[in-house]
Amino acid sequence: MKNELEDMSREEFAARDFSEKSALRERERKYYAEKSEEIGLKSLERFLQYHPNPSRFMKLGFTYAHRDLESVADAMANGKPWAVVSGLNPSAPLHIGHKAVYDEVLWLQEQGAEVFIPLTNDESFVVGKSKTLGESRKVAYEEVIPSLIAMGFDAERTHMFVDSDYPDIYNVAMDLSNKISLNRAFGVFGFQMNENPGALFYRSAVQIAQILLPQYEEFGGPKPTVVPVGIDQYPYLLLARDVAEKKGFVPPAGLFLKFLWGMDGKGKMSASREGSAIFLTENTNRAKKIIKTSYTGGSPFADFQRENGGIHDICPVYTLRSYHFEEDNIVGEECASGQTLCGDCKKQAIEDVVSYLEDHQSKLEEARSRVGEFILKTPIRSIFEE
Amino acid sequence: MKNELEDMSREEFAARDFSEKSALRERERKYYAEKSEEIGLKSLERFLQYHPNPSRFMKLGFTYAHRDLESVADAMANGKPWAVVSGLNPSAPLHIGHKAVYDEVLWLQEQGAEVFIPLTNDESFVVGKSKTLGESRKVAYEEVIPSLIAMGFDAERTHMFVDSDYPDIYNVAMDLSNKISLNRAFGVFGFQMNENPGALFYRSAVQIAQILLPQYEEFGGPKPTVVPVGIDQYPYLLLARDVAEKKGFVPPAGLFLKFLWGMDGKGKMSASREGSAIFLTENTNRAKKIIKTSYTGGSPFADFQRENGGIHDICPVYTLRSYHFEEDNIVGEECASGQTLCGDCKKQAIEDVVSYLEDHQSKLEEARSRVGEFILKTPIRSIFEE
Repeated sequence: MKNELEDMSREEFAARDFSEKSALRERERKYYAEKSEEIGLKSLERFLQYHPNPSRFMKLGFTYAHRDLESVADAMANGKPWAVVSGLNPSAPLHIGHKAVYDEVLWLQEQGAEVFIPLTNDESFVVGKSKTLGESRKVAYEEVIPSLIAMGFDAERTHMFVDSDYPDIYNVAMDLSNKISLNRAFGVFGFQMNENPGALFYRSAVQIAQILLPQYEEFGGPKPTVVPVGIDQYPYLLLARDVAEKKGFVPPAGLFLKFLWGMDGKGKMSASREGSAIFLTENTNRAKKIIKTSYTGGSPFADFQRENGGIHDICPVYTLRSYHFEEDNIVGEECASGQTLCGDCKKQAIEDVVSYLEDHQSKLEEARSRVGEFILKTPIRSIFEE
Repeated sequence: MKNELEDMSREEFAARDFSEKSALRERERKYYAEKSEEIGLKSLERFLQYHPNPSRFMKLGFTYAHRDLESVADAMANGKPWAVVSGLNPSAPLHIGHKAVYDEVLWLQEQGAEVFIPLTNDESFVVGKSKTLGESRKVAYEEVIPSLIAMGFDAERTHMFVDSDYPDIYNVAMDLSNKISLNRAFGVFGFQMNENPGALFYRSAVQIAQILLPQYEEFGGPKPTVVPVGIDQYPYLLLARDVAEKKGFVPPAGLFLKFLWGMDGKGKMSASREGSAIFLTENTNRAKKIIKTSYTGGSPFADFQRENGGIHDICPVYTLRSYHFEEDNIVGEECASGQTLCGDCKKQAIEDVVSYLEDHQSKLEEARSRVGEFILKTPIRSIFEE
């Protein structure tokens, strides 16, 4: 930066930075619009019209589109059984990006959903994100499940399982296998010969088994099911819908959530990029430091930002605050108008995040004692019927 | 046949039949010789020299070659632990061809082996040999396992499991997955895009898991292991040996058995060809009929056969008798010399088979009551070590 400032005037540098961030916002908007168009997603407009009390993420546009939500909306409106499946690869503890997703899942549970949360330690291992099946299994029990419980899921209607400890999921995957051809799987996911057979089986059968699990007769299926997904996970949903039809199940609906920006500004919040994620079990001083040094949508120069405002849509501090800690969107308006600068905004974010982390972490001990209440043990025997 | 006999003299027909059967014997000899040469198998000559009491199948040449048997022979000679893995796809009851294999496994158990018998109902299903996982699972418990028990395995040192009911095998398969690339698997098995992900995972990971299971610490491994295989199963052994090395296990040895001829003379005895197999739970009248109408290595004309002898090496009745019911090879000599004709030979085969089936079937009820003693339940937890 020093070199650039030497070559450019302060004004030129500020203008270039602003124009780069504006372009990023534009790319981001186009990405979601074009992808949604390409795969034929529907907007949530109609759902929002008819639902008396939509989720905050729907109102904010974080949850922005759906596929076939009608099946679930009908069950929701008529008090019929329906399910949500929202799994997770437990290679690291949950971060604030996961909190966003599971806040949406909690809202779905309030609307009547039975919730299934597969913790895919096998996926972590076969894709190389953990060194052993045991490493990710340990993270699941010691970090992820307690955090999920602390978020407030209802034990009566929430089923969590770690794949290695619920190997019935592999029987289900085998049961579904003859409805899936390698041709189709490679067509959907692309063909990666340097993969291993476990990763291929996970991707093309175990994942489908997890999505369709609530529809086996042990859980009173077939029934409408919705899967909250990022747009990059659409292929799984697509394959699961195909298989559901062949199996006489209800093709699962998709609810599409935007990615939460990583604090490093380099894309989706991710545990694998240093400085990207704020973990829920994070030391609060580290969380403070990550926010303090975070990328923002603002300008390096206060006067420039006061005059031109910040590009909040691509700002991780803005999305952090607005998605999690603000009731209305005033924080966005204050940024766009140049009224609030990044320093103050980060201060507020730190206050909110630290307070949330302290509260969350204070609940973990009790949550750890309740793990057993949430673990799914139901054997799946219906697949053996002749 | 009528047409051919009208066009040809009786002598011409007999000569052509004889020459066809001789050619078949030659092809058969060449097949084993070339295959063994191609994949570098060793003959059992040295083993037979040093072993005080080899199996009847080794003496008869039914068990004809090996790969790396030294590792097992050493454990056998020195009273160290070693294992045999001999699995089976339970899409149909056991037949006499399986009896041959398991007679060899019984001999190996007498020499000190711990025996593992995976009943791969998942394989039956994913390759389309049974309609549901339950169908082949039922055959495993109701037909296959009781027959195996009735053969005389020692419950203390024999572990049988049906894949669907021992899903730990899938955890083991996942644990081994990152040691196997799709590239390598497709190279070994050929690339079949119309397969399903379950079949691919079975072939390239679950099968390997079964072969290496005795080497996990739950069973006191690593330890020498031998797998009795047909030459067409060599790829699995090869892949298992690769994976064993990467995992720090002992590369499993292979003991190569010839195929038992089907009674229809159309190749390897198989449950899926009508008239090929004599099932161990077969009605004895049906067994009689199958033998009576069986293909043979003899001539349609008694005088021709008395003069020229029969081609016993390719005769299912001969292999049936010599492999199962004769102490020495006199039946082969009597056929080759023309001394015994097919009718008499079949009569003796019927007597032997019926007596064996009656004896076997009389043991099934007690065997059924003992299934629980043989079923493997050991959980595999060592794969979770970090």
